[in-house]
Amino acid sequence: MPGSTLLLVLDLVGVLAFAVDGALTATRAARLDVIGVITLGVITALGGGILRDLLIGRVPPATFSDWRYLAVAATGGVLVCLFGYRMGRRRVATTLTVLDAAGLSLFAVTGTSTALAAGLGPVQSVLLGGLTAIGGGTLRDVLIGRTPRVLSSGLYAVPALLAAVVVVISAQLTQTDVVGIGSVWAVLAAGLCFTLRMVGVLRRIDLPGPRQPPLH
Amino acid sequence: MPGSTLLLVLDLVGVLAFAVDGALTATRAARLDVIGVITLGVITALGGGILRDLLIGRVPPATFSDWRYLAVAATGGVLVCLFGYRMGRRRVATTLTVLDAAGLSLFAVTGTSTALAAGLGPVQSVLLGGLTAIGGGTLRDVLIGRTPRVLSSGLYAVPALLAAVVVVISAQLTQTDVVGIGSVWAVLAAGLCFTLRMVGVLRRIDLPGPRQPPLH
Amino acid sequence: MPGSTLLLVLDLVGVLAFAVDGALTATRAARLDVIGVITLGVITALGGGILRDLLIGRVPPATFSDWRYLAVAATGGVLVCLFGYRMGRRRVATTLTVLDAAGLSLFAVTGTSTALAAGLGPVQSVLLGGLTAIGGGTLRDVLIGRTPRVLSSGLYAVPALLAAVVVVISAQLTQTDVVGIGSVWAVLAAGLCFTLRMVGVLRRIDLPGPRQPPLH
Repeated sequence: MPGSTLLLVLDLVGVLAFAVDGALTATRAARLDVIGVITLGVITALGGGILRDLLIGRVPPATFSDWRYLAVAATGGVLVCLFGYRMGRRRVATTLTVLDAAGLSLFAVTGTSTALAAGLGPVQSVLLGGLTAIGGGTLRDVLIGRTPRVLSSGLYAVPALLAAVVVVISAQLTQTDVVGIGSVWAVLAAGLCFTLRMVGVLRRIDLPGPRQPPLH
Repeated sequence: MPGSTLLLVLDLVGVLAFAVDGALTATRAARLDVIGVITLGVITALGGGILRDLLIGRVPPATFSDWRYLAVAATGGVLVCLFGYRMGRRRVATTLTVLDAAGLSLFAVTGTSTALAAGLGPVQSVLLGGLTAIGGGTLRDVLIGRTPRVLSSGLYAVPALLAAVVVVISAQLTQTDVVGIGSVWAVLAAGLCFTLRMVGVLRRIDLPGPRQPPLH
Repeated sequence: MPGSTLLLVLDLVGVLAFAVDGALTATRAARLDVIGVITLGVITALGGGILRDLLIGRVPPATFSDWRYLAVAATGGVLVCLFGYRMGRRRVATTLTVLDAAGLSLFAVTGTSTALAAGLGPVQSVLLGGLTAIGGGTLRDVLIGRTPRVLSSGLYAVPALLAAVVVVISAQLTQTDVVGIGSVWAVLAAGLCFTLRMVGVLRRIDLPGPRQPPLH
C-alpha cells in the first residue's frame, strides 16, 4: 500500500480522474443508464490497481480494504451523472484525453511505488507500474468494444513506462523503497508522463508503424 | 467455500443456469461448434466464481478443486447441444433472460456467503458477491463481442448488490458467517434479486440515464 | 516453474511463436504503431502463462521473475517490426496459423507440467495446461475485437487438452511430476496437438455444430 500521504493523495486523484474519464466515456460513447455510467467509471478507476494487486499477490486488493478508493471512484461517476451534461462535445473530447493522461501518469507513479514497497525488483516494479497505469483504460475500452488505447495510440505505454523508470531510479538514489513524503521525484515522474502523452496527442506524434509491404 | 448443503446446491444450480445460458447464447448468437458452445457455457458458469476466488486469494479456485462444478457446467453445455435446437426463437430469448437472472440471483447469494466465510468484511463481501454474480455474464458478453449486460441493462447489478446486502445483514443478525442450512434468508435474497431483475425486464424499467446535453 | 532445460526451451520457443503471432496479427489486422505491435506480441506470448500462475497462486508470475520471458517476447515483436513487411499476404495467413498452433502445442505441454510441478492434481493440471495454451491467443483476439479462436475454430481447445492429458499420463507412468529432461513424451504430446490442429485447419475439419432448429 502507498506508504506516504503523498502517494495516497496521488493515488486517489488518479482514481478520481479515471472514474470521471470512464463515466464520461459511458455517457457519450455508450448511452448507458446511471448505474452503467457509475460502474464503468469504477471499473476504469480501480481496474489497474486490482490487476496489479493480483499480480503482486496482495489479496484482497487494496481497493477492497480501503473504503476511500471505492468512495472516490463512485463519487467521480456520480459527479458525471449530475453535471456531465453541461459539457459541449468538443470539451468532452479534450477532457477525456486530459483525464486519461492524468490517471495514466499518477498510476504509473503510485503503481511502481506500490510494487517497490511490496518488495519487487526494479524491472518488475517498472512493468507493474506500467500495467497499473494502462490497466483501467484498457478494461474500459474492451468493455465498450473499442480498440484499447494502449495499442492504438502513439505515446501511451511509453510515457507510463518512462515515469515508472524515473520512480525506480529515484528510489534507488534516495535509498528508499517508497517515494518519500513530499518527494519531488514523484511529481517529476508524473509530470514527465503527462507531458509526453499530451505532446504526443497535441502534435499528433505517433511512433512509426512497422514498415508495410509494398502495394504491388 | 460454501459451508452448507443449501449453499452448495444453490451454487451448482447457478452454475447450471449460467452454463445453459452461455451455451444457448453461443448457438444462437455465434453459431459455434459443439466445443465452442460447451466452452462458452463453462466460461459463463465458472467465470464469476474464479474471479471471486482470485480476489479472495483462494487459489486454485474452488472450481478446480471440486469436480462437481466443472461437471455440472459441462453438462449444461451438453444438454444445449443435444436439445437446444428444439426451442423456438422467442422461447430462447425468454429462456436466456430467465436463466441469466437465476444465475445472477443464486451467485449473488453464494458469492457473498463465500466471501463472508473467507473472513472478509461486510462491505467487501457485498462487492465480491456482486462481482461473482455479474462476472460470468460479463465474460460471456465480452467474448462474443457485445456490450456487457452489467453496463447496458437497467436493474442488473443493483438487484445483485441488494441480494448481497440481505445476505450480509442476515449473517450479522443470525451471528453466523455462513448462511445456515435451510436458511430462509438465502432463498429470500435470491428471490428478491430475481424478482427485481425480471420486473425490470418485463416492465422495461430502466434507471434514468444521466441528463444529456441539449441538442442545440 | 519448468524443472528442466527441455521445458524451459519449449516454453521460450512457445513464447517466441506467440509473440511473433501476436505482433504479426497487429501489423496486418490492426495497423498499430511499433509499440502497439510489440505490446500485442508480448500480451499474446505471456498472457496464458500469467493467467495460469495467477490460478496456481504463483505470484508474481514467472514472466516477472525470469527476465528471459519478457526478453524473448519483446524480441519476437521487434523481429516482426523489422522484417514483417517482407511477407506476402498469403504467407502471413499461413505463418499465423502455424505459429499459433506451435504456441498452443508447446504451452499445452509446459503449462500442464508447470501445474503438476506446483502440486496440482491430474485433472486440475490438464485444465490449467489447456488454459495456458489458449489464454494468450484469446487475450489477443479480445483486444483486437475478433471472436476468440477457442470459440470459433474447430479443433483448437481439444488438441490442447489432449496434449495435456498425454503429459499427465506420462508423468504418472514415469513417476515424476515434471516431464523429465529429454523426455520423448513432451515432444510427442506437443506434436500430437500441433498435428491435430493443423489437420483440422488444412482439411477444414470442424466439429459439428449443435443441431439447429428447423427453418420453418
